[in-house]
Amino acid sequence: SRGPQQAPPVERELYCTLEELYNGASKRLKITKRMLKADKQTTEIAEKVLVIDVKQGWKAGTRVTFAKEGDEGPDVIPADVVLVVHEKPHPRFKRDGNDLIYEAQITLARALIGCTIDIETLDNRLLTVPIAEVVSPGWEKVIKGEGMPESKNPENRGDLKIRFKIIFPHYLNEKQKEGIKNL
Amino acid sequence: SRGPQQAPPVERELYCTLEELYNGASKRLKITKRMLKADKQTTEIAEKVLVIDVKQGWKAGTRVTFAKEGDEGPDVIPADVVLVVHEKPHPRFKRDGNDLIYEAQITLARALIGCTIDIETLDNRLLTVPIAEVVSPGWEKVIKGEGMPESKNPENRGDLKIRFKIIFPHYLNEKQKEGIKNL
Repeated sequence: SRGPQQAPPVERELYCTLEELYNGASKRLKITKRMLKADKQTTEIAEKVLVIDVKQGWKAGTRVTFAKEGDEGPDVIPADVVLVVHEKPHPRFKRDGNDLIYEAQITLARALIGCTIDIETLDNRLLTVPIAEVVSPGWEKVIKGEGMPESKNPENRGDLKIRFKIIFPHYLNEKQKEGIKNL
Repeated sequence: SRGPQQAPPVERELYCTLEELYNGASKRLKITKRMLKADKQTTEIAEKVLVIDVKQGWKAGTRVTFAKEGDEGPDVIPADVVLVVHEKPHPRFKRDGNDLIYEAQITLARALIGCTIDIETLDNRLLTVPIAEVVSPGWEKVIKGEGMPESKNPENRGDLKIRFKIIFPHYLNEKQKEGIKNL
Protein backbone atom coordinates (compact mmCIF):
# COMPACT_ATOMS: atom_id res chain seq x y z
CA SER A 1 0.00 0.00 0.00
CA ARG A 2 1.37 3.43 -0.96
CA GLY A 3 1.00 5.97 1.79
CA PRO A 4 1.09 9.75 1.26
CA GLN A 5 4.09 11.00 -0.76
CA GLN A 6 6.29 13.94 0.19
CA ALA A 7 6.64 16.65 -2.46
CA PRO A 8 10.21 17.63 -3.45
CA PRO A 9 11.89 20.34 -1.31
CA VAL A 10 10.98 23.97 -1.88
CA GLU A 11 13.87 26.46 -2.05
CA ARG A 12 13.76 30.01 -0.72
CA GLU A 13 16.48 32.66 -0.81
CA LEU A 14 17.88 33.93 2.47
CA TYR A 15 19.61 37.27 2.00
CA CYS A 16 22.27 37.98 4.64
CA THR A 17 24.51 40.99 5.14
CA LEU A 18 28.26 40.52 5.56
CA GLU A 19 27.79 41.79 9.12
CA GLU A 20 25.36 38.92 9.84
CA LEU A 21 27.73 36.37 8.29
CA TYR A 22 30.69 37.84 10.20
CA ASN A 23 29.09 38.10 13.64
CA GLY A 24 26.38 35.47 13.41
CA ALA A 25 22.72 36.50 13.77
CA SER A 26 19.22 35.33 14.48
CA LYS A 27 17.09 36.07 11.44
CA ARG A 28 13.34 35.78 10.99
CA LEU A 29 11.91 34.90 7.60
CA LYS A 30 8.15 35.12 7.03
CA ILE A 31 6.80 32.44 4.70
CA THR A 32 3.27 32.03 3.35
CA LYS A 33 1.89 28.52 3.16
CA ARG A 34 -1.25 26.46 2.97
CA MET A 35 -2.16 25.05 6.42
CA LEU A 36 -4.71 22.42 7.46
CA LYS A 37 -7.67 23.77 9.36
CA ALA A 38 -8.99 22.06 12.52
CA ASP A 39 -11.26 19.81 10.43
CA LYS A 40 -8.07 18.22 8.97
CA GLN A 41 -9.79 18.28 5.55
CA THR A 42 -9.73 21.87 4.35
CA THR A 43 -6.83 24.33 4.20
CA GLU A 44 -6.22 28.05 4.41
CA ILE A 45 -3.32 30.33 3.45
CA ALA A 46 -1.44 31.44 6.53
CA GLU A 47 1.85 33.08 7.45
CA LYS A 48 4.56 31.49 9.50
CA VAL A 49 7.85 32.90 10.71
CA LEU A 50 10.94 30.73 10.45
CA VAL A 51 13.75 31.64 12.85
CA ILE A 52 17.22 31.01 11.45
CA ASP A 53 20.35 30.85 13.55
CA VAL A 54 22.86 32.31 11.08
CA LYS A 55 26.30 30.95 12.00
CA GLN A 56 29.54 32.91 11.73
CA GLY A 57 31.28 32.25 8.44
CA TRP A 58 28.36 30.90 6.43
CA LYS A 59 28.91 31.40 2.74
CA ALA A 60 26.65 32.10 -0.21
CA GLY A 61 25.12 28.74 -1.15
CA THR A 62 24.89 27.43 2.42
CA ARG A 63 21.61 25.49 2.75
CA VAL A 64 19.42 25.24 5.84
CA THR A 65 16.53 22.76 5.83
CA PHE A 66 13.27 23.29 7.73
CA ALA A 67 11.62 19.87 7.62
CA LYS A 68 7.99 19.66 6.49
CA GLU A 69 7.39 23.41 6.45
CA GLY A 70 5.84 23.33 2.94
CA ASP A 71 2.13 23.39 2.08
CA GLU A 72 -0.08 21.15 4.22
CA GLY A 73 -3.08 19.22 2.93
CA PRO A 74 -5.21 16.18 3.73
CA ASP A 75 -3.25 12.97 3.15
CA VAL A 76 -0.07 14.91 2.29
CA ILE A 77 3.42 15.01 3.83
CA PRO A 78 4.45 18.68 3.57
CA ALA A 79 7.64 19.36 1.58
CA ASP A 80 10.83 20.46 3.29
CA VAL A 81 11.69 24.14 2.96
CA VAL A 82 15.35 24.74 2.10
CA LEU A 83 16.79 28.21 2.64
CA VAL A 84 19.78 29.07 0.44
CA VAL A 85 22.08 31.80 1.73
CA HIS A 86 22.74 34.77 -0.59
CA GLU A 87 25.09 37.61 0.27
CA LYS A 88 23.84 41.16 0.05
CA PRO A 89 26.34 43.47 -1.66
CA HIS A 90 28.30 45.42 0.94
CA PRO A 91 29.21 49.09 0.64
CA ARG A 92 32.81 48.64 1.88
CA PHE A 93 33.87 45.03 1.43
CA LYS A 94 33.85 42.28 -1.13
CA ARG A 95 34.17 38.70 0.06
CA ASP A 96 36.52 36.18 -1.53
CA GLY A 97 36.14 32.89 0.33
CA ASN A 98 37.24 33.70 3.87
CA ASP A 99 39.10 36.84 2.77
CA LEU A 100 37.70 40.34 2.63
CA ILE A 101 38.71 42.83 -0.06
CA TYR A 102 38.68 46.55 0.67
CA GLU A 103 39.37 49.13 -2.03
CA ALA A 104 41.05 52.31 -0.82
CA GLN A 105 41.21 55.36 -3.06
CA ILE A 106 44.32 57.42 -2.46
CA THR A 107 45.99 60.26 -4.29
CA LEU A 108 49.25 59.67 -6.11
CA ALA A 109 51.08 61.85 -3.59
CA ARG A 110 49.84 59.72 -0.69
CA ALA A 111 50.71 56.55 -2.65
CA LEU A 112 54.29 57.78 -2.88
CA ILE A 113 54.80 59.54 0.43
CA GLY A 114 52.83 57.13 2.61
CA CYS A 115 49.52 57.37 4.39
CA THR A 116 47.21 55.66 6.86
CA ILE A 117 43.97 53.93 5.87
CA ASP A 118 41.05 53.90 8.31
CA ILE A 119 38.68 50.95 7.89
CA GLU A 120 35.49 50.35 9.81
CA THR A 121 35.34 46.59 10.42
CA LEU A 122 32.23 44.40 10.22
CA ASP A 123 32.11 44.32 14.04
CA ASN A 124 32.36 48.10 14.29
CA ARG A 125 35.99 48.51 15.24
CA LEU A 126 38.09 51.18 13.57
CA LEU A 127 41.17 49.63 12.02
CA THR A 128 43.97 52.11 11.35
CA VAL A 129 46.47 50.73 8.88
CA PRO A 130 49.72 52.62 8.32
CA ILE A 131 51.06 52.28 4.78
CA ALA A 132 54.79 52.96 4.82
CA GLU A 133 55.53 51.24 1.49
CA VAL A 134 55.25 52.92 -1.90
CA VAL A 135 51.84 51.89 -3.24
CA SER A 136 52.27 50.87 -6.87
CA PRO A 137 49.40 49.76 -9.14
CA GLY A 138 48.27 46.20 -8.38
CA TRP A 139 50.03 46.00 -5.01
CA GLU A 140 47.88 44.98 -2.07
CA LYS A 141 48.36 45.25 1.67
CA VAL A 142 47.37 42.05 3.48
CA ILE A 143 46.24 42.17 7.10
CA LYS A 144 46.26 38.68 8.53
CA GLY A 145 43.25 37.55 10.55
CA GLU A 146 40.97 40.47 9.70
CA GLY A 147 38.87 38.50 7.18
CA MET A 148 35.73 36.43 7.67
CA PRO A 149 35.52 33.74 10.40
CA GLU A 150 35.80 30.15 9.22
CA SER A 151 32.43 28.46 9.66
CA LYS A 152 34.01 25.29 11.10
CA ASN A 153 36.19 27.21 13.53
CA PRO A 154 35.14 30.85 13.92
CA GLU A 155 38.24 31.74 15.95
CA ASN A 156 40.21 31.32 12.71
CA ARG A 157 39.75 34.17 10.33
CA GLY A 158 40.79 34.85 6.76
CA ASP A 159 42.72 37.95 5.72
CA LEU A 160 41.78 41.50 4.87
CA LYS A 161 43.28 42.61 1.58
CA ILE A 162 43.49 46.32 0.91
CA ARG A 163 43.61 47.16 -2.79
CA PHE A 164 44.37 50.64 -3.98
CA LYS A 165 42.90 52.87 -6.61
CA ILE A 166 45.50 55.56 -7.15
CA ILE A 167 44.04 58.88 -8.22
CA PHE A 168 46.41 60.66 -10.60
CA PRO A 169 46.31 64.41 -11.15
CA HIS A 170 44.67 65.32 -14.47
CA TYR A 171 47.25 67.95 -15.29
CA LEU A 172 50.65 69.01 -14.00
CA ASN A 173 51.99 72.53 -14.20
CA GLU A 174 55.66 73.20 -14.95
CA LYS A 175 56.60 73.53 -11.28
CA GLN A 176 54.96 70.18 -10.48
CA LYS A 177 56.72 68.56 -13.43
CA GLU A 178 60.03 69.94 -12.16
CA GLY A 179 59.37 68.38 -8.74
CA ILE A 180 58.97 64.85 -10.05
CA LYS A 181 61.76 64.88 -12.62
CA ASN A 182 64.13 63.19 -10.19
CA LEU A 183 61.76 60.38 -9.29
CA SER B 1 22.24 0.72 -54.47
CA ARG B 2 24.50 2.45 -51.99
CA GLY B 3 27.64 3.89 -53.57
CA PRO B 4 30.83 4.70 -51.66
CA GLN B 5 30.33 6.89 -48.58
CA GLN B 6 32.43 9.96 -47.75
CA ALA B 7 34.03 9.96 -44.30
CA PRO B 8 33.37 13.00 -42.10
CA PRO B 9 35.75 15.96 -42.53
CA VAL B 10 39.17 15.83 -40.91
CA GLU B 11 40.30 18.97 -39.05
CA ARG B 12 43.87 20.27 -38.95
CA GLU B 13 45.24 23.30 -37.13
CA LEU B 14 46.73 26.11 -39.19
CA TYR B 15 48.96 28.31 -37.04
CA CYS B 16 49.33 31.86 -38.38
CA THR B 17 51.34 34.78 -37.08
CA LEU B 18 49.68 38.16 -36.58
CA GLU B 19 51.92 39.43 -39.39
CA GLU B 20 50.44 36.83 -41.79
CA LEU B 21 46.89 37.70 -40.71
CA TYR B 22 47.64 41.43 -41.03
CA ASN B 23 49.36 41.40 -44.41
CA GLY B 24 47.94 38.24 -45.96
CA ALA B 25 50.27 35.39 -46.88
CA SER B 26 50.69 32.24 -48.90
CA LYS B 27 51.31 29.34 -46.53
CA ARG B 28 52.28 25.77 -47.27
CA LEU B 29 51.11 22.95 -44.99
CA LYS B 30 52.51 19.48 -45.44
CA ILE B 31 49.99 16.70 -44.75
CA THR B 32 50.53 12.96 -44.67
CA LYS B 33 47.82 10.78 -46.17
CA ARG B 34 47.08 7.38 -47.62
CA MET B 35 47.07 7.53 -51.45
CA LEU B 36 45.93 4.96 -54.01
CA LYS B 37 48.68 3.35 -56.00
CA ALA B 38 48.46 2.94 -59.77
CA ASP B 39 46.71 -0.43 -59.36
CA LYS B 40 43.75 1.48 -57.78
CA GLN B 41 43.52 -1.32 -55.18
CA THR B 42 46.41 -0.81 -52.78
CA THR B 43 47.51 2.33 -50.98
CA GLU B 44 50.67 3.91 -49.62
CA ILE B 45 51.42 6.69 -47.15
CA ALA B 46 52.54 9.82 -48.98
CA GLU B 47 53.06 13.50 -48.30
CA LYS B 48 51.19 16.31 -49.97
CA VAL B 49 51.61 20.06 -49.63
CA LEU B 50 48.48 22.18 -49.35
CA VAL B 51 48.92 25.82 -50.37
CA ILE B 52 46.73 28.23 -48.40
CA ASP B 53 46.02 31.78 -49.47
CA VAL B 54 45.76 33.44 -46.03
CA LYS B 55 43.56 36.52 -46.41
CA GLN B 56 44.07 39.77 -44.54
CA GLY B 57 41.94 39.92 -41.40
CA TRP B 58 41.28 36.21 -40.95
CA LYS B 59 40.54 35.40 -37.34
CA ALA B 60 41.22 32.42 -35.09
CA GLY B 61 38.51 29.90 -35.92
CA THR B 62 38.36 30.73 -39.64
CA ARG B 63 37.91 27.44 -41.54
CA VAL B 64 39.29 26.60 -44.97
CA THR B 65 38.11 23.42 -46.69
CA PHE B 66 40.24 21.37 -49.05
CA ALA B 67 37.76 19.00 -50.68
CA LYS B 68 38.58 15.28 -50.74
CA GLU B 69 42.15 15.67 -49.49
CA GLY B 70 41.72 12.93 -46.86
CA ASP B 71 42.88 9.33 -47.06
CA GLU B 72 42.23 7.58 -50.36
CA GLY B 73 41.26 3.94 -50.74
CA PRO B 74 39.52 1.57 -53.12
CA ASP B 75 35.78 2.28 -53.28
CA VAL B 76 36.14 5.32 -50.95
CA ILE B 77 35.38 9.02 -51.37
CA PRO B 78 38.22 10.76 -49.48
CA ALA B 79 37.15 13.03 -46.61
CA ASP B 80 37.43 16.80 -46.85
CA VAL B 81 40.34 18.35 -44.95
CA VAL B 82 39.31 21.44 -42.97
CA LEU B 83 42.05 23.79 -41.76
CA VAL B 84 41.16 25.82 -38.68
CA VAL B 85 43.10 29.04 -38.16
CA HIS B 86 44.91 29.47 -34.83
CA GLU B 87 46.83 32.59 -33.89
CA LYS B 88 50.41 32.27 -32.70
CA PRO B 89 51.11 34.43 -29.64
CA HIS B 90 52.82 37.64 -30.67
CA PRO B 91 55.70 39.24 -28.75
CA ARG B 92 54.31 42.81 -29.04
CA PHE B 93 50.58 42.69 -29.71
CA LYS B 94 47.44 41.01 -28.48
CA ARG B 95 44.44 40.87 -30.78
CA ASP B 96 40.91 41.73 -29.67
CA GLY B 97 38.61 41.28 -32.67
CA ASN B 98 39.88 43.82 -35.18
CA ASP B 99 41.72 45.83 -32.51
CA LEU B 100 45.31 45.39 -31.46
CA ILE B 101 46.46 45.87 -27.88
CA TYR B 102 49.99 47.04 -27.12
CA GLU B 103 51.32 47.25 -23.58
CA ALA B 104 53.88 49.98 -22.98
CA GLN B 105 55.93 50.02 -19.79
CA ILE B 106 56.80 53.54 -18.68
CA THR B 107 58.23 55.00 -15.53
CA LEU B 108 56.01 57.05 -13.24
CA ALA B 109 57.97 60.20 -14.11
CA ARG B 110 57.32 59.67 -17.84
CA ALA B 111 53.64 58.91 -17.09
CA LEU B 112 53.36 62.31 -15.42
CA ILE B 113 55.64 64.47 -17.54
CA GLY B 114 54.82 62.97 -20.93
CA CYS B 115 56.71 60.76 -23.35
CA THR B 116 56.68 59.23 -26.79
CA ILE B 117 56.05 55.56 -27.48
CA ASP B 118 57.73 53.88 -30.46
CA ILE B 119 55.84 50.90 -31.84
CA GLU B 120 56.97 48.64 -34.67
CA THR B 121 53.82 47.82 -36.67
CA LEU B 122 52.94 44.43 -38.17
CA ASP B 123 53.93 45.78 -41.61
CA ASN B 124 57.29 47.02 -40.34
CA ARG B 125 56.60 50.72 -40.00
CA LEU B 126 57.78 52.61 -36.95
CA LEU B 127 54.87 54.38 -35.31
CA THR B 128 55.90 57.22 -33.01
CA VAL B 129 53.09 58.15 -30.65
CA PRO B 130 53.46 61.30 -28.54
CA ILE B 131 51.72 61.04 -25.18
CA ALA B 132 50.97 64.53 -23.91
CA GLU B 133 48.27 63.49 -21.43
CA VAL B 134 48.97 62.35 -17.88
CA VAL B 135 48.91 58.55 -18.04
CA SER B 136 46.87 57.28 -15.10
CA PRO B 137 46.30 53.58 -14.32
CA GLY B 138 43.74 51.99 -16.64
CA TRP B 139 43.84 54.80 -19.19
CA GLU B 140 44.51 53.77 -22.77
CA LYS B 141 45.58 55.71 -25.84
CA VAL B 142 43.56 54.73 -28.92
CA ILE B 143 45.06 55.15 -32.38
CA LYS B 144 42.31 54.85 -34.96
CA GLY B 145 42.92 52.67 -37.99
CA GLU B 146 46.13 51.04 -36.75
CA GLY B 147 44.45 47.75 -35.85
CA MET B 148 43.88 44.61 -37.94
CA PRO B 149 42.29 44.81 -41.41
CA GLU B 150 38.65 43.73 -41.63
CA SER B 151 38.49 40.47 -43.60
CA LYS B 152 35.47 41.64 -45.63
CA ASN B 153 37.04 44.99 -46.45
CA PRO B 154 40.78 45.10 -45.72
CA GLU B 155 40.99 48.87 -46.32
CA ASN B 156 39.04 49.27 -43.07
CA ARG B 157 41.12 48.65 -40.02
CA GLY B 158 40.40 48.36 -36.31
CA ASP B 159 42.18 50.46 -33.71
CA LEU B 160 45.46 50.16 -31.90
CA LYS B 161 45.03 50.50 -28.15
CA ILE B 162 48.09 51.35 -26.09
CA ARG B 163 47.81 50.25 -22.48
CA PHE B 164 50.34 51.32 -19.91
CA LYS B 165 52.14 49.54 -17.14
CA ILE B 166 53.43 52.31 -14.93
CA ILE B 167 56.62 51.42 -13.10
CA PHE B 168 56.68 53.04 -9.68
CA PRO B 169 59.91 53.66 -7.78
CA HIS B 170 60.40 51.15 -4.96
CA TYR B 171 61.57 53.76 -2.51
CA LEU B 172 61.64 57.55 -2.31
CA ASN B 173 64.24 59.54 -0.42
CA GLU B 174 63.29 62.68 1.50
CA LYS B 175 64.26 65.00 -1.35
CA GLN B 176 62.08 63.03 -3.79
CA LYS B 177 59.21 63.05 -1.33
CA GLU B 178 59.58 66.83 -1.01
CA GLY B 179 59.35 67.19 -4.79
CA ILE B 180 56.00 65.46 -5.10
CA LYS B 181 54.32 66.97 -2.05
CA ASN B 182 52.62 69.61 -4.18
CA LEU B 183 51.22 67.13 -6.72
